Order: sequence, then structure tokens, then C-alpha cells
Amino acid sequence: MSLSIILLAGGVGGAKMAEGLMHSRCGDGLSIVGNVGDDQEIHGLWVSPDIDTLTYTLTERIDRTKGWGLKDESNRTLDALKQLGADTWMYLGDQDFATHIYRTAQRKQGVRPSVIAADIASKLGLKVPLLLATDDAVPTRLNTQSGWLDFQSYFVRYQCQPQITEIEFQGAQQASATPESLAAIAAADLIVFAPSNPIVSIGAILAIPGIRSAIENSSAYKIAVSPIIAGKTVKGPADKMMRSLGFSSDALGVAQCYQSLLDLLVIDTADQQYCDAIEALGMQVACTDTLMPERDDKVRLAEELLDLYQAAQAEGRNIVTQDSKPEQVCR
Amino acid sequence: MSLSIILLAGGVGGAKMAEGLMHSRCGDGLSIVGNVGDDQEIHGLWVSPDIDTLTYTLTERIDRTKGWGLKDESNRTLDALKQLGADTWMYLGDQDFATHIYRTAQRKQGVRPSVIAADIASKLGLKVPLLLATDDAVPTRLNTQSGWLDFQSYFVRYQCQPQITEIEFQGAQQASATPESLAAIAAADLIVFAPSNPIVSIGAILAIPGIRSAIENSSAYKIAVSPIIAGKTVKGPADKMMRSLGFSSDALGVAQCYQSLLDLLVIDTADQQYCDAIEALGMQVACTDTLMPERDDKVRLAEELLDLYQAAQAEGRNIVTQDSKPEQVCR
Repeated sequence: MSLSIILLAGGVGGAKMAEGLMHSRCGDGLSIVGNVGDDQEIHGLWVSPDIDTLTYTLTERIDRTKGWGLKDESNRTLDALKQLGADTWMYLGDQDFATHIYRTAQRKQGVRPSVIAADIASKLGLKVPLLLATDDAVPTRLNTQSGWLDFQSYFVRYQCQPQITEIEFQGAQQASATPESLAAIAAADLIVFAPSNPIVSIGAILAIPGIRSAIENSSAYKIAVSPIIAGKTVKGPADKMMRSLGFSSDALGVAQCYQSLLDLLVIDTADQQYCDAIEALGMQVACTDTLMPERDDKVRLAEELLDLYQAAQAEGRNIVTQDSKPEQVCR
Repeated sequence: MSLSIILLAGGVGGAKMAEGLMHSRCGDGLSIVGNVGDDQEIHGLWVSPDIDTLTYTLTERIDRTKGWGLKDESNRTLDALKQLGADTWMYLGDQDFATHIYRTAQRKQGVRPSVIAADIASKLGLKVPLLLATDDAVPTRLNTQSGWLDFQSYFVRYQCQPQITEIEFQGAQQASATPESLAAIAAADLIVFAPSNPIVSIGAILAIPGIRSAIENSSAYKIAVSPIIAGKTVKGPADKMMRSLGFSSDALGVAQCYQSLLDLLVIDTADQQYCDAIEALGMQVACTDTLMPERDDKVRLAEELLDLYQAAQAEGRNIVTQDSKPEQVCR
């Protein structure tokens, strides 16, 4: 089965879904569009956490316990920076520093960020195309009771504690989508929204006008996987952010975030009670086990997405029938 | 005895002399003017090898076996950079990378290089003022049979093998001396030229017009220690460079490099035969053991320089007498 799949992916949840799809029966057709909204300059180096999490995960370099960073990592550079009086609240390991040093040097030489990301991924052995939504800087900024924060300050330094009142993707309205991501979206049969933060991960990708309209105009089948299970995120502050911004922090809230963009929302079986309300928003809904602690779970979920896509294709667009995968489809 | 001493210092030889003077009876009055001619951008980071060698040596962090770099160093960042396809002929350790990352970030924020150097030295515990000759970039460039090379390419990458036909300190004629170095030179009682490379270490400092004229106009007593012993350098390519540029690679050649700048040249007892020829160039000469393998040797040589200075003071400027330190003074 040859199928062009685009995965819109944030960090840890995005990397899990990417891993599942990469090792699924349709892995050959996968391309990933990653989020650069949480990119940030740290110690003068350009750090791109979501992109690195994808690259490290898919090349088996990730620290599986943390879900980010490199395994067998050390922190002698960071310790030495601390001795020099630098702020070291952001953990950056010795091997990881190489990625940031290399990226920063390449940027300084004028290489496009998306070309650098692809280069790093390729040098580390990743075969799946890893695309950036934009080559422009679109830093996520969060307004809190103590003022505006950049993303890593909110996320790492203050451990998602500040109450958020507003979020912006600085410069996103003026940002151009990369030609590679537009071409990949245009050629896609299936677009998957990973179970990443709908506000600051997938939201930051969709904030690029060219990306959003390309997805809206695409004839691909569009499936999102809810990152919220029983009102909580598996990891990260999506639930908290959604509440802060007036969404309900549940599967229905996720559906609201993606309204008018999706054919199908896949939610956890724990959230079956939202099916009617979600369908009322104009999308199909399917329930399954969406937790992906291990490789098998990731691949199983990916295969189920492919089954759902196939069933929809067999029955005509946007219609999921009882008998295609009766035990997985909501009803 | 309170004495203001300026040491003009290159890398390893400069650091040895600095260590000796710092631990001498006049250590409290010591300031060091370091060389930035071999500074170079590597992996997009600003590397300042001579300055770091001074800082690391004087704060007991140096790898004593190599004479440069940090002890107990590791190279996981460099290995990871290699995997990304970066040129890694320049060894940079994990802890050392922190210095370069910090320096580069500070420069990017507009902090003067000399303020950064002093900041790093202070954070690492150095009490002796470490001054830069200039805040401007004055990269040493070497013309060879295969074209112009930057200093680290010549020195590290090609291990001083290329035949040099010409040396320039790019931008030195337009470079400004730092106010700190000018003030220190103006206040100096004694200026010591470390046994560093007279061409590319001390020469790069003297290539800053403001520094050279400040030294020429200073009423301080000026002593150089020859880095050449029996026609060879202890470390580095000074002998080779001197020959390439038409100097004799011996104590006399060193005297020629410093002609009109010195009151006294201290040479090794192995080079006694050059005394007459050196005096004919208009400077005094003293012979002693100039090798400094251990701390004791460094301090002993430093104390001897102070004795020579005191003897000259006692007898009137620029005159070293038989009875002041008869066994050490040339005759």
C-alpha cells in the first residue's frame, strides 16, 4: 500500500506518533512537519526542542525515560557554563550541545533552518523526511500574571506553573510556509495531527497562514489523535493551557481546537461520552486506546489510523462505517 | 616590594612565565596582556586559545601534560559534532566548549572581548588582571606555498608543516589598544616579554600600534626572555617561523625581533656565545637556565628577573653590574 502521509507533530507526543507511523505498514510514505514555535536561543545557540525530540526519537537516540534529550548523556559543558555564571535552568547535555552548536553555525552561514534540520536528521540516520513548517522565527510567547514569557521559560524554568492569559506566535502571520512542507501537504493522501499540544505544538504549525490554508484546501483525509485522555494530558501542559484559553480540557476541547480542519478525531475509549458532542462539530469520531507507552502501542495506534483511513476510502470520504473496524470505531 | 609588572604573554610559554611571576615575591603587582591574534571562530564559536591557556593555567585547571586545554576533559560534544559532519581537527573538550559558548554569547550581546576575558578569568578564580591588547579582531594570517592560512589551520590542522612566506595581523594597523592595557603599561615599573613566540604571540601584541608606542614610550624597565634555547623552541613553531621570515632561529634572532624595545634580553646559558652580538644591538643580556618544566623553575626564573630589575634600578637604568647577580648576569 503506497500512501503519502503527513504527520503534524509537536514534541514527545508527536515523536511517539511518528515512531508508530514510521514502523507501520505505510512508513515509507511518511513525512513529518515539525513545530519550531518553541525554538529558542539559549547561551547564544539556536535550540529547537521539538525538532530534536523527533530526530532523536526516530534515530533511537532519545532518552526513553525522559522522552527528550539523548540517552547516555552527560552535562560537563552545562556544569562549566554554570561556573561561568550562565543561567542553566534548561538542561542541555554534552552531545546535545553539538546539535545546537552545529545548527547555530549553519544558520550563521545562511543555510535555511529547514535544510539544517533535514541535514542533521540525515546525518543521524533518519530516512523519513523531517520538514519545518516555516524557516521564519515564530516564537511562542505566553502572557501570564507576571508578564510575557518565552516558551522555554514557561515550560522548563517555571514548570508550567504561571497562569496563562494569552498566547501568541510572534511573527506567524507574516511567516512563510516552507516550499517543502507545502509540497508535501499538497501531495498527501492522509494528514495526521499527532497527539501533541493543540495550542502550542499543532497550533503553532497551523498559525502559519500558508500551512493552515494548504491543509484546509487539501483533499487528503485528516485525522487528529486527541492528546487528552480522561481530561488530562499524558505529558505537558496542554490541559492547563486549554482551560486557561477557554477550551474545555477534554476530547471535546481538542475537537473545538481543530474545528473545520478534521475529517476524524480519534479519542481514547475513556472519553466515549464526548462522541455525540464531537460529531455535532462536524467531524467523525473514533475511540481506541490512545496511550503509547511502548513501540508496539505506537505501531498499533498507527495501524488503526491507517485502517480508519482505508475504511473511509472504501466507504467514501468522511464516512466511517460500523463494519470497517467495528470494535474501534465509536459506534 | 611593591612593583607594577606587565607581562606580555602568548600561550604556553606565556602561561609558564605568568605562573612564575604570579607566585614570585612581586606577584601582587602583576598584570598580564594576552594575545588575541590566534583567536578564531570555530563551529561558529569564538575561540581564544592563548587567553584560555593563561586563564586555565593560572587557575590550576590546565592539562599539564599537554600545556593547553582543561584537565580531566572529555570530548562528547566534539564526537557528536563529528557525527554531524563538522570539521573536528581542532580539539575542543566538553568543559572547554562552555568557555567558547559563553564568550560567543557575551560577544553577541555586545560585551567587549576584554571585559569577557576578565569576567571568565574572574569567574574561574583568577586574581591577576588579565588584559587583552585590543578588543578588535586582528587575526594572524600566514601565507604559505598553498595560499593564506588562518593561524589555527596552520598550527593545529597542518601541524606547522607548511612553509611560511609572509605573516600578517589582519586589521592590526587599524586596531585600538584597550584602555586597560594602555593604563597598565603606563603605570608599569617592569615590562616582561614572556618566552613566547616573538613573531605570532608577542609580535601580534606589538602589532597594535597603540601598544607598541606605549611600550616604546614607557619608562618601565623592559626585559624579554628568549623562547629559543640552543636554536630550538621548547614548544611551538617560533624557530621555524623565524627562519622563514629571515631571522636567525637563535637568541640573536630573538634580540633582532625586539630591537629598540628592550633594556635586557635574558637568554639560556646554552646560548652564551650570542652575548656580544646581542649587546651590539643595544641591549643588555643575561644568561640563566630558562627552561621551566616545573613550578619551582618558573618561580626561580621570575625571581631572577626581579633580581635583574632590582640590580638595574640600584645601578641606574639599563646597567647591570657584575656584582648584582654575578652568576646570572652574562659577564
